[in-house]
Amino acid sequence: MNRIITLTTDFGTGDGYVGTMKGVILRINPQATIVDITHEIAPQSIEQGAFLFAASARYFPANAIHVVVVDPGVGSTRRPIAVQMGETTYVAPDNGILPLAIFGQHGYVAQDYRDLHGGFDPARLAHFQPGSTKPVSKIMHLNKPEYWLPHVSHTFHGRDIFAPCAAHLSLGLPLEAVGEPIKDWKWKTLGGGAVRVQDSVFGHVIHIDHFGNIVTDIREELVQGMDLSGIVLTVGEHRVKGLQQTYSDAASGQAVALVGSTGHIEIAVRDGSAARDLGVRLGQAVVASCKP
Amino acid sequence: MNRIITLTTDFGTGDGYVGTMKGVILRINPQATIVDITHEIAPQSIEQGAFLFAASARYFPANAIHVVVVDPGVGSTRRPIAVQMGETTYVAPDNGILPLAIFGQHGYVAQDYRDLHGGFDPARLAHFQPGSTKPVSKIMHLNKPEYWLPHVSHTFHGRDIFAPCAAHLSLGLPLEAVGEPIKDWKWKTLGGGAVRVQDSVFGHVIHIDHFGNIVTDIREELVQGMDLSGIVLTVGEHRVKGLQQTYSDAASGQAVALVGSTGHIEIAVRDGSAARDLGVRLGQAVVASCKP
Amino acid sequence: MNRIITLTTDFGTGDGYVGTMKGVILRINPQATIVDITHEIAPQSIEQGAFLFAASARYFPANAIHVVVVDPGVGSTRRPIAVQMGETTYVAPDNGILPLAIFGQHGYVAQDYRDLHGGFDPARLAHFQPGSTKPVSKIMHLNKPEYWLPHVSHTFHGRDIFAPCAAHLSLGLPLEAVGEPIKDWKWKTLGGGAVRVQDSVFGHVIHIDHFGNIVTDIREELVQGMDLSGIVLTVGEHRVKGLQQTYSDAASGQAVALVGSTGHIEIAVRDGSAARDLGVRLGQAVVASCKP
Repeated sequence: MNRIITLTTDFGTGDGYVGTMKGVILRINPQATIVDITHEIAPQSIEQGAFLFAASARYFPANAIHVVVVDPGVGSTRRPIAVQMGETTYVAPDNGILPLAIFGQHGYVAQDYRDLHGGFDPARLAHFQPGSTKPVSKIMHLNKPEYWLPHVSHTFHGRDIFAPCAAHLSLGLPLEAVGEPIKDWKWKTLGGGAVRVQDSVFGHVIHIDHFGNIVTDIREELVQGMDLSGIVLTVGEHRVKGLQQTYSDAASGQAVALVGSTGHIEIAVRDGSAARDLGVRLGQAVVASCKP
Repeated sequence: MNRIITLTTDFGTGDGYVGTMKGVILRINPQATIVDITHEIAPQSIEQGAFLFAASARYFPANAIHVVVVDPGVGSTRRPIAVQMGETTYVAPDNGILPLAIFGQHGYVAQDYRDLHGGFDPARLAHFQPGSTKPVSKIMHLNKPEYWLPHVSHTFHGRDIFAPCAAHLSLGLPLEAVGEPIKDWKWKTLGGGAVRVQDSVFGHVIHIDHFGNIVTDIREELVQGMDLSGIVLTVGEHRVKGLQQTYSDAASGQAVALVGSTGHIEIAVRDGSAARDLGVRLGQAVVASCKP
Repeated sequence: MNRIITLTTDFGTGDGYVGTMKGVILRINPQATIVDITHEIAPQSIEQGAFLFAASARYFPANAIHVVVVDPGVGSTRRPIAVQMGETTYVAPDNGILPLAIFGQHGYVAQDYRDLHGGFDPARLAHFQPGSTKPVSKIMHLNKPEYWLPHVSHTFHGRDIFAPCAAHLSLGLPLEAVGEPIKDWKWKTLGGGAVRVQDSVFGHVIHIDHFGNIVTDIREELVQGMDLSGIVLTVGEHRVKGLQQTYSDAASGQAVALVGSTGHIEIAVRDGSAARDLGVRLGQAVVASCKP
């Protein structure tokens, strides 16, 4: 039994913090396969962490163990938790990042539903309400110090609690050994989220990627039934008309809107950086509308 | 059968794109050994990608599968291809990056010839002409969707096509299963390339590395027979005299020219950054000459 | 026999230098498990390299092979060495980085002593004097070219000497095969190091991490017996009072001092960057005092 362990953090890779977590894991399970999702989450950004983690984690083997450490409350009373959903195990601080990634607007559960059922039925997500734990089968409080490092710091539970617990789980230890079941967890409510009102969708910039592409929280399902070639995206003073298929549908230096690889509407500038060229920042409002 | 898979992209590591590709590979082949060459190719720079990939790939096991995704034409009609040369397999978009890396001026084939035969015979490279496919034994168009992800986006073929095809190949699947043979591929012609005219070599800056070292396209073979201690490198207003053996042959803060680890002539500043201290940019002209 | 190989360098990850080292290792030992500690050591900073490496390496399996390449003297007469301590093997240039990491003020040996013995006895470190080699059992000069790459460059011994030697050792080759025993090694003497004079400790900023946290060379042992809630840390014009348990003991935007995860006193700003907000630089003086 050898389950893949993924790591997602806001630690960066320069200080050796991530290397240290890998050392802890390999000391417990020298056969572990450890994969980095990203360590460049904006410091303490639970929302961005949930989005980037969710977009990537769904592509991993179903029995993976996902360790997600964006942890502004480290050392306080916030609990370390592990969550089981189907074959997949998640290990993280109890600060809302897991329910946001799993059930949130950007959650891949929604995407899995779409892929499995060939269409998007908002009613299917009705039970994914704030506070819901369905269809999570177990939420465990990681409160068994015998599976932590002997000395637990106040500032680095990624090393002292999350990594060793994940390593023990990867050896086949059941969740019941490393924690105790709990029924509540912290739910993170986001300020916004995209909303459709008739022929307009009001959303926000939720991520700017390495290429300067502007990723919005407007998923393609939200514009279903609208005239895609007539949609106008407005961000700041800029207007981008029509949803294209791909970057190369635009001329060099020109802005283009499309459905990106995560199913979200993006704005790109061919051979350029949309965020820089359009002067756009994280959180800025974006409107998709069919009316001129 | 478990072949190493390397990844070279311009994706950066911050957005989780690379982590996602690894998830796709491990879902198909959980035993795969995946190694990052670099993910910091300048966005869409086929030339830099070919240079950095070629400098590294030749050190890997001969039966490695190399995935190279610098892909400005993603989503357009450019084809995904796989190439076989000896035991090595390459997977990439058909945009010229593979022939440039394999046969190009900076290609490691040239370096392998030198290492194997103890000298450099330009005639040996005579058949490496633009358009040539020798000694590549197979070029396959990756056109079998059964080996792609079920849903193929228009913007992320690294995840949807290249990663799953490489993973299937790493399991022992023959190239014939994942594609169809083609005879032509896109050849990337570079603007320049270093040229020797009697006792002067006219070249360019092709890379600036992490230390600020200035890497030129002037390979050591091009200065064979010249008086190495008398060579003067001119870049912008700066002149650096003599080819030294190593960085420590210079005083602190002083510029030094030498043959770098890739066989290319470099300019470094000891305990400093040559690119910053000399105000040098990518693409700038460099002349190596024995005449004062 | 398959020992984990860790890599710590100042190479960055953008140029493919680290990927190349991994290719060299896997060509010799395709089963090797290779783990990155960090590749973002400040260029040629032996002191920072020793600190970050030491903080991470102690968490790895005891029989790991650690490759540490911060190598300003590459190509000169400085020797490549391998060191055995207990089950652990270290491979590095002979420039002081290994003794600094192993025995230095920041060395993890000191931390292991504390963890093992439940207290800190400076006398225990008395034999860790400059020049000491106890309790290192072997220091080998890596002078057997048959275990290097056939062509050794003057500028990249990470690829040509250190990686292949580590790979051969990971296959079970004894140290005696790859080198010859030597008795002396280069000892790196640091300018400063924290000093306690009665109720004041005079130290320095030795690292600024990804979060902007200011890490000092004042270890918690140095303030033993002082009134922790009354300690005042002075750095530049700023004064931070009291040692807290964790980041969340401070209000947002407020500076907080605490013992960080490496056992060193740190200054953080909650939801901010202490280094930026307090205008602090590497090497700057820090005083911890009980007197107002």
